[in-house]
Amino acid sequence: MKIAFAADHAAVDMKTLLIEWAQGEGHEVVDLGTHGTASVDYPDYGYRVANAVADGKAERGVALCGSGIGISIAANRHPGARCALVCEPLSAALARNHNDANIIAMGARVIGPEMAKACLATFLSTDFLGDRHTARVAKLGQPAFDEEPA
Amino acid sequence: MKIAFAADHAAVDMKTLLIEWAQGEGHEVVDLGTHGTASVDYPDYGYRVANAVADGKAERGVALCGSGIGISIAANRHPGARCALVCEPLSAALARNHNDANIIAMGARVIGPEMAKACLATFLSTDFLGDRHTARVAKLGQPAFDEEPA
Repeated sequence: MKIAFAADHAAVDMKTLLIEWAQGEGHEVVDLGTHGTASVDYPDYGYRVANAVADGKAERGVALCGSGIGISIAANRHPGARCALVCEPLSAALARNHNDANIIAMGARVIGPEMAKACLATFLSTDFLGDRHTARVAKLGQPAFDEEPA
Repeated sequence: MKIAFAADHAAVDMKTLLIEWAQGEGHEVVDLGTHGTASVDYPDYGYRVANAVADGKAERGVALCGSGIGISIAANRHPGARCALVCEPLSAALARNHNDANIIAMGARVIGPEMAKACLATFLSTDFLGDRHTARVAKLGQPAFDEEPA
């Protein structure tokens, strides 16, 4: 699978670790930065990974910052991104099963390296269940803020 | 504080519990549904709570579904929403400190009632730190998918 990785300065070490793990599993990696510890703005990297996945330049994305919160908010601004912030593998599986998530977000200051690997492994190996979830996922691609819920 | 609550059918019980807790703490509550256990689509409720907070009808929002993932993706489609999916209070605090989050998302199938109350209490009582975080939060309001990161 072709996987795009993006992180802010707080999560560069986790990005390196997960890229090495993914390459060891035979995946192709696109590294969208950041590449050092100089302070950057997480929204820039959230938008970049969302764009890469929504445009089909990568099949899945990994978005990392200190808490995972900021970069997941940013990625989800793109209607083609479905970015799931997770801290354990159950949620990584549900993100695929129910939401057809195409980006996983994690917080390098919140979870440790082995937990992050376990979440990513589950995210990459779990299928979307389709069925009743399909129409809901379609609605995520067509935000409608001016309408009342059905 | 005026707080808008929205949930899908998987999280109505957690919504009821958190509304009762919030009212007991003296907060004003806006209940955006759903109101029963009939199956609904989480994106409708994510858009609704995002709209309520972005329009100023409520100061904060609470978005609940089975995992919290789907409704958080939906809420974050709105550029005025900053929805943080959390499962413990550290992340609820970081969401306020760094991201000025105005909506908290939680998963009723993932965390228990007391953990949800603890997360919400922290979310409501924690301040945004401003400073270097201000420019990043501003970028969340102006998504720019066609630009390279600075």
